[in-house]
Amino acid sequence: MTAGAAAPRRRGRPSRTQTERGPATREVILEAAREQFSAHGYEKTSVRAIAKAAGVDSALVHHYFGTKEQLFAAAIEVSFAPALQAPAAIEDGPFDAVGERLTRFVLGVWENPATRTPLLAIVRSAVNHETAAAVFRRLVTTQLLSRVAATLDLPDAELRAELAAAQLVGVSMLRYVIQVEPLASADMEDLVARLAPVVQGHLTGFSNPE
Amino acid sequence: MTAGAAAPRRRGRPSRTQTERGPATREVILEAAREQFSAHGYEKTSVRAIAKAAGVDSALVHHYFGTKEQLFAAAIEVSFAPALQAPAAIEDGPFDAVGERLTRFVLGVWENPATRTPLLAIVRSAVNHETAAAVFRRLVTTQLLSRVAATLDLPDAELRAELAAAQLVGVSMLRYVIQVEPLASADMEDLVARLAPVVQGHLTGFSNPE
Repeated sequence: MTAGAAAPRRRGRPSRTQTERGPATREVILEAAREQFSAHGYEKTSVRAIAKAAGVDSALVHHYFGTKEQLFAAAIEVSFAPALQAPAAIEDGPFDAVGERLTRFVLGVWENPATRTPLLAIVRSAVNHETAAAVFRRLVTTQLLSRVAATLDLPDAELRAELAAAQLVGVSMLRYVIQVEPLASADMEDLVARLAPVVQGHLTGFSNPE
Repeated sequence: MTAGAAAPRRRGRPSRTQTERGPATREVILEAAREQFSAHGYEKTSVRAIAKAAGVDSALVHHYFGTKEQLFAAAIEVSFAPALQAPAAIEDGPFDAVGERLTRFVLGVWENPATRTPLLAIVRSAVNHETAAAVFRRLVTTQLLSRVAATLDLPDAELRAELAAAQLVGVSMLRYVIQVEPLASADMEDLVARLAPVVQGHLTGFSNPE
């Protein structure tokens, strides 16, 4: 889609009341959607409220993004973008240290407030609303877990990837969401040392005493 | 607190409009609180709505339970009761199979719809509201994790118990809440076989190839 012969815009942020069609408007709507979904969750956010925050008509929101569910998917896909670099992070190094790289990657996303806040909003919506859970599930499965599994080349690769992810999801919940001590204040390197072998074990098999 | 010289009650369920003081009224309020918190979450539930559902005055609810936060704590403590049998389940058998017993216990609580529904309501409230998270954190820490840790007799017992719990929390989230496949449909015994060694490893140390 091209913006056509748009008049030259003034510098700075696009006006909230602009009605011109094109990528800029699309971005303004998407940012408003991210803010509204983050602040109020999936259920309590309406397309009308997002349109109002973006300074556009509701019809324009539907024109660009379709239903509320599709808009939510588009909004969280952007918020989730940092997490989608996980497969690259995993592939970028020796195979016997994949557990450590995945552990560092996930904890790193949560340690960084800029990525933690939108991720927390997604988790809250997914836990509370079936539609949001379905969108989240699809995103996590197709964009993340399947790609991790594809690097494994094992018949039960998907289940392995999910059990490894489960260890890191559980630590994220207890450390960053519920904030249980001493885990919430535990040293990052200590955690990596304890978790990396488990994640590696799920993915490629645990060392056997025999 | 004693009920005093209460008049003999008719048989059957206590009336919803009863105003007599005593354990029966307390139970009626607590059940109404559980229902309201489960259906609407912590934030959207008011003491007034709970009082109305129980057929009593709001002042009576405050008289028995104090603040909304204290009422929530009392309500989830009952819902959480099955999970509080975990320490007993852990102690009841050989120490080198504690990982398997804890894994079976947690998956069993989630597999049973009667215990899954209230647990899910608690998780939703805790993920969404800081006050509910604090109540849940206190309950999990003092009633569950500390008691598991006490059976270990190791200096880092609490962190070990939390990392073991994290593996099972993550599996619970992905399997029962988000319902990611193939984990959501995985065979229970296959899961126990894969998870028990990890839980055991966190609690008592992983087998070392050397």
